Amino acid sequence: MDEMVAAVDIGGTKIAGALVDRRGRLTAQCQRPTPAEADAESVLQVVTEVLDRLAEAPGWAGVRGVGIGSAGPVDVSKGAVSPVNIPAWRDFPLVDSVREHLGGDRLPVLLTGDGPAMTAAEHWQGAARGFRNALCMVVSTGVGGGLVLDGALYPGPSGNAGHIGHISVELDGDPCPCGSRGCVEVMAAGPAIARRALRQGWRPDASGDTSAGAVAEAARRGDPVALASFARAAQALAAGIAGTAALVELDVVVIGGGVAKSGELLFAPLRESLRGYATLPFVRDLELRPAQLGTDAGLVGAAAAAAQWLRLDGWF
Amino acid sequence: MDEMVAAVDIGGTKIAGALVDRRGRLTAQCQRPTPAEADAESVLQVVTEVLDRLAEAPGWAGVRGVGIGSAGPVDVSKGAVSPVNIPAWRDFPLVDSVREHLGGDRLPVLLTGDGPAMTAAEHWQGAARGFRNALCMVVSTGVGGGLVLDGALYPGPSGNAGHIGHISVELDGDPCPCGSRGCVEVMAAGPAIARRALRQGWRPDASGDTSAGAVAEAARRGDPVALASFARAAQALAAGIAGTAALVELDVVVIGGGVAKSGELLFAPLRESLRGYATLPFVRDLELRPAQLGTDAGLVGAAAAAAQWLRLDGWF
Repeated sequence: MDEMVAAVDIGGTKIAGALVDRRGRLTAQCQRPTPAEADAESVLQVVTEVLDRLAEAPGWAGVRGVGIGSAGPVDVSKGAVSPVNIPAWRDFPLVDSVREHLGGDRLPVLLTGDGPAMTAAEHWQGAARGFRNALCMVVSTGVGGGLVLDGALYPGPSGNAGHIGHISVELDGDPCPCGSRGCVEVMAAGPAIARRALRQGWRPDASGDTSAGAVAEAARRGDPVALASFARAAQALAAGIAGTAALVELDVVVIGGGVAKSGELLFAPLRESLRGYATLPFVRDLELRPAQLGTDAGLVGAAAAAAQWLRLDGWF
Repeated sequence: MDEMVAAVDIGGTKIAGALVDRRGRLTAQCQRPTPAEADAESVLQVVTEVLDRLAEAPGWAGVRGVGIGSAGPVDVSKGAVSPVNIPAWRDFPLVDSVREHLGGDRLPVLLTGDGPAMTAAEHWQGAARGFRNALCMVVSTGVGGGLVLDGALYPGPSGNAGHIGHISVELDGDPCPCGSRGCVEVMAAGPAIARRALRQGWRPDASGDTSAGAVAEAARRGDPVALASFARAAQALAAGIAGTAALVELDVVVIGGGVAKSGELLFAPLRESLRGYATLPFVRDLELRPAQLGTDAGLVGAAAAAAQWLRLDGWF
């Protein structure tokens, strides 16, 4: 019987599950829409349905533990989550609830924030593999991240370390929903790229699509306002990445998420801006890589973090 | 015979030495001016003179290792230093040179950057004592720092982690000598406070003193330009501290150095600005403390880092 971790990935739009083996392969994958506006118990019920579905799979007998990755903020010290996009869950005791559903102490349950989970996945199976010090980030509708320090995932005491989306790189900048100003997220996430382009005169085509994807298409056609909006996002990311490197020393930065999928449109100005901000000798040789794992990163990473915590043999 | 560490602290203006015991007490203290403009061998000679002086002290027989704290950047993986204010030392092989002077392998020699050294000192004997996650910083003619993560000093692979002075909090801000823009140092160090006050119309008294200390005195008398310059420095520090807390999760921030000696002139606006930037649940309860160790922090910290590395019994 192959050793498995049962992984659950909880986001604002979907709740996914899979059994993950020591090679990072997923089986018995399933997913449900997140009832984001429902009450706390109804959201939990979707999580337990996903787990029940996994428990029907033949691989379940090999399961040694449950790894849950969740949108943040999380508090792994209490096993609680407060996902921004699931308002009914505030300090919701997710770990205890899942343990109770699974019959108490039968299976250990580990909670990981989604940034650290994605980081664990890229470090285990993706672009950060083999590096001892890494920042892995998602640039999408938000900006999240996680850290690998000295060869291991560093989630921090509450599981939120690597929160690069909410460091301020423009202290007088635009207000951020987090309450601060000029955060990397409010300058570089998809909605910020679109908002800035619109503010500076870019107009969508007949489809009326005003997403960052539409701005990316305009930029590919050479639209200067669209290009400038991507360049500004890259500048904010560069300042944040260089600052992170100055604080913890990084060998590699891995970037995934929808905005990163625009490829060189983001990576070219990002590399150029990094030369301007990452100037100290110990931050200068930073390697920049696109993420290798796609939407499964959350599941793979939740499993990786759990396997690391359980010290499962032969997983790394 | 009490176990000792021989500590040397190398800065741009002085090179100091002492024997440090397991309680952090200093004996046989001595110091020399740094011949900052001399050639590499002449600077080294001052270091070896300080060591020779320590070797004459009765406590030397108990010495188990040598801890060297140096102005940065350093590269502890190579035992090399490139202090900004000692131009002749660029990638200077300080550890090998000191080992050779001491007769090879007789005594282990550990190099620590001055930011991490000060941090080790405050964590061992000062304001960060008992905290598992700390940022300790010096706000003086420059801004430096170091990190304690998960209960231990985290120097990073090259020994420069915690370099908060060179994270950009104003991505379009003033150019910094490091090559970047809007770094915490270029906004919050003493010379920056004085420069900004002068630029905005503050004028020194008859003494002609245009130092940050003179600006602090004017601020204490209620000069609005001087007060505004301190408030702006505090804002930059707050953005940098909040960003650091978002990245690694901190329990306490300890601030020392000449500018921090202005006390509430800096700490009051800093606490206020922190409320604006440190907004996420896991960074909100950050404690802010003045450093407890003075100019000896470099020696105490170089010894602490060496004792930790040597796993000396009964030191912590």
